Amino acid sequence: MSYPQLFLQKHEDKRLRQGHLWVFSNEVDTGRSPLSQFAPGDLVSVHDHAGKALGVAYVNPNALICARLLSRKPAAAIGEKFFTARLSAALELRQRLFEQPYYRLVFAESDGLPGLVIDRFGQVLSVQITTAGMEKHKDLLIDILLKLLNPTAILLKNDTSQRQLENLSLEPVLAYGDLADTLEIIENNCRFHINVADGQKTGWFYDHRLGRAQFAQWAQGLKVLDLFSYAGGWGIPAAVAGAVEVTCVDSSESALALAGQSAVLNGVQDKMQFIKADVFEFLKQQVEQNQRYDAVVLDPPALIKRKKDFKAGYEAYRRLNHLALQVLNNQGLLVSASCSHHLSRDNLHEILRSSARHIDRHLVILATGGQGPDHPIHPALPESEYLKTYFCAVSSRF
Amino acid sequence: MSYPQLFLQKHEDKRLRQGHLWVFSNEVDTGRSPLSQFAPGDLVSVHDHAGKALGVAYVNPNALICARLLSRKPAAAIGEKFFTARLSAALELRQRLFEQPYYRLVFAESDGLPGLVIDRFGQVLSVQITTAGMEKHKDLLIDILLKLLNPTAILLKNDTSQRQLENLSLEPVLAYGDLADTLEIIENNCRFHINVADGQKTGWFYDHRLGRAQFAQWAQGLKVLDLFSYAGGWGIPAAVAGAVEVTCVDSSESALALAGQSAVLNGVQDKMQFIKADVFEFLKQQVEQNQRYDAVVLDPPALIKRKKDFKAGYEAYRRLNHLALQVLNNQGLLVSASCSHHLSRDNLHEILRSSARHIDRHLVILATGGQGPDHPIHPALPESEYLKTYFCAVSSRF
Repeated sequence: MSYPQLFLQKHEDKRLRQGHLWVFSNEVDTGRSPLSQFAPGDLVSVHDHAGKALGVAYVNPNALICARLLSRKPAAAIGEKFFTARLSAALELRQRLFEQPYYRLVFAESDGLPGLVIDRFGQVLSVQITTAGMEKHKDLLIDILLKLLNPTAILLKNDTSQRQLENLSLEPVLAYGDLADTLEIIENNCRFHINVADGQKTGWFYDHRLGRAQFAQWAQGLKVLDLFSYAGGWGIPAAVAGAVEVTCVDSSESALALAGQSAVLNGVQDKMQFIKADVFEFLKQQVEQNQRYDAVVLDPPALIKRKKDFKAGYEAYRRLNHLALQVLNNQGLLVSASCSHHLSRDNLHEILRSSARHIDRHLVILATGGQGPDHPIHPALPESEYLKTYFCAVSSRF
Repeated sequence: MSYPQLFLQKHEDKRLRQGHLWVFSNEVDTGRSPLSQFAPGDLVSVHDHAGKALGVAYVNPNALICARLLSRKPAAAIGEKFFTARLSAALELRQRLFEQPYYRLVFAESDGLPGLVIDRFGQVLSVQITTAGMEKHKDLLIDILLKLLNPTAILLKNDTSQRQLENLSLEPVLAYGDLADTLEIIENNCRFHINVADGQKTGWFYDHRLGRAQFAQWAQGLKVLDLFSYAGGWGIPAAVAGAVEVTCVDSSESALALAGQSAVLNGVQDKMQFIKADVFEFLKQQVEQNQRYDAVVLDPPALIKRKKDFKAGYEAYRRLNHLALQVLNNQGLLVSASCSHHLSRDNLHEILRSSARHIDRHLVILATGGQGPDHPIHPALPESEYLKTYFCAVSSRF
């Protein structure tokens, strides 16, 4: 295939050569290849300043990230065969990792498909397309997914703010089939009710799967507090594994309703309770009332969405961890997570160290985890890594 | 209790206040408290420049790390009650984490016992005392261990070079009971033969337990190469979990002999082979002979023991990973570990990124792991963190 050429300025090929897949608009040699000559989603051949081909990308002349590499093969044909190969490779990897069809099927750049995320809920697919370049291939992608997986429904979950940056509509679209209000999925041998159409993000957070399994292994006999519980992904497996009491706290009534249904599905409703509350306020009250738990799971939504929110977000994470430590019994277990890309692993480590010192507890880290293997990290794209989880044992002053 | 006072220079209390437990000799106010007045192992009360008490430590006036904090309680009594409480807390944590008595029972500072490491192999204890301050309490520690655990043998595994820094003897001592040449332990539901007296370190490496379990989960149907296999901790659970073929390579004939015995114990001897070889040479040959594997486990011994070895050691890790990638089939699994504290997680990440780019493979990180929960990390002691493991899926050029 032959594509129009996009030339980079001198030395601006370095990031791509290191493995990254993005071109920023200020890196383009716009004298040789004006961005204005391209339409959103056009395919181009990317070249370094000396003219050497680096691969094939799609462009969006109106976005800060103006091109994303689809293939390092010069002149690669980007069509049915290409997308079938990529989707098949993504599927093959998941089928090797998981026994049941519940996982993130495609994780964007890490699967060689920038701008595309697909969560698989059995025979239902929840698709997020975040770039004009991928939106252009939407119909083709749906056709291939139908052939590969024969799903009963494909929902284009377009209600993500990232699409605004690419001038794409935010209206969710049921692209194929019929979708029930509530689906049942399986994770860590537990059954969960989820709501794909109205739920947060794609409808479920598969990324914590391994962390939740680890927690369940250590939860036997414990009185557990599951903060920002969403639909019960942490609390329910812990209850099934033998936790004596699990309290889920979330500000979303609909999420708690799903968690309640799932508790019944797994036969653990008698030892679970569900509290609709602001977690900060709830924790403050618990501290005042001297309430204590053997284990606290602290898995807040992203509190730092953009780099400029770092300071306020860091302070929110610090306050939450500080409060969580205060409601722990001696020899308690704290599971502290962050899904903010901008809060680094070292940042969270420091929050744990300083919070424990501040209240004079002996805290040690038993394990650290991150996003599950269906959310693989691309080693050249720091942006593909976002989740970190610390498992800590906390005791009184040593 | 009242102890002689050790005064720090101005501002040198900062690290201790942040949670660290060490005092370096150049931080002591030797005008007010000359180190020469102390004997190795003496207990002192540590004070900041203003005279405020920071806790109780033991000292070694002849070592670079001249004091290690045992307690933050001023005037804490360091005796039978103290050590019984610390050892009991360490035991209680392990009993909550593990069903069977095979684990690192004490991990030094992280368990509030600087200078002490104990591995438990059922009723046999392998003890490493690395400081004069802990050596002084050796008999008391043995008494308490006898009361707490009623072991059949306690071996003081003194053959560690760290003891030289504290002028301690390097001769192993059987402090109690009788010790068989070969012991049987259980890890990840597999049985292993180990040799405590003559094996490396304490005789077994429990630190990779979780990583080995994760690998076994993904090993079904794979042809596995287990490099630096030692006594088979990675390869045998993989074979039991359904790997079709496992090749263990190590330079130690005695380690391979133990691995061979353990293969028989677990009934997987027919699909395992054991090769005594230098791993670098072996890998080069395999590349030349076009041998390929579905999964490679690369778990070398510490190649960077001291900071000054960083450059040579980094290059050795780079070469090993580069070679390992070349013997992987398409869609292969690379497990790459490092137990060198001085090779950071980011260093190993960079080695994986650059090696994959160099041979034009698409490598993604499925999971990262570290030392198991019986080797807890003290968040204020970077020195307590040393192990990192990357699980990577590797495919041909994208």
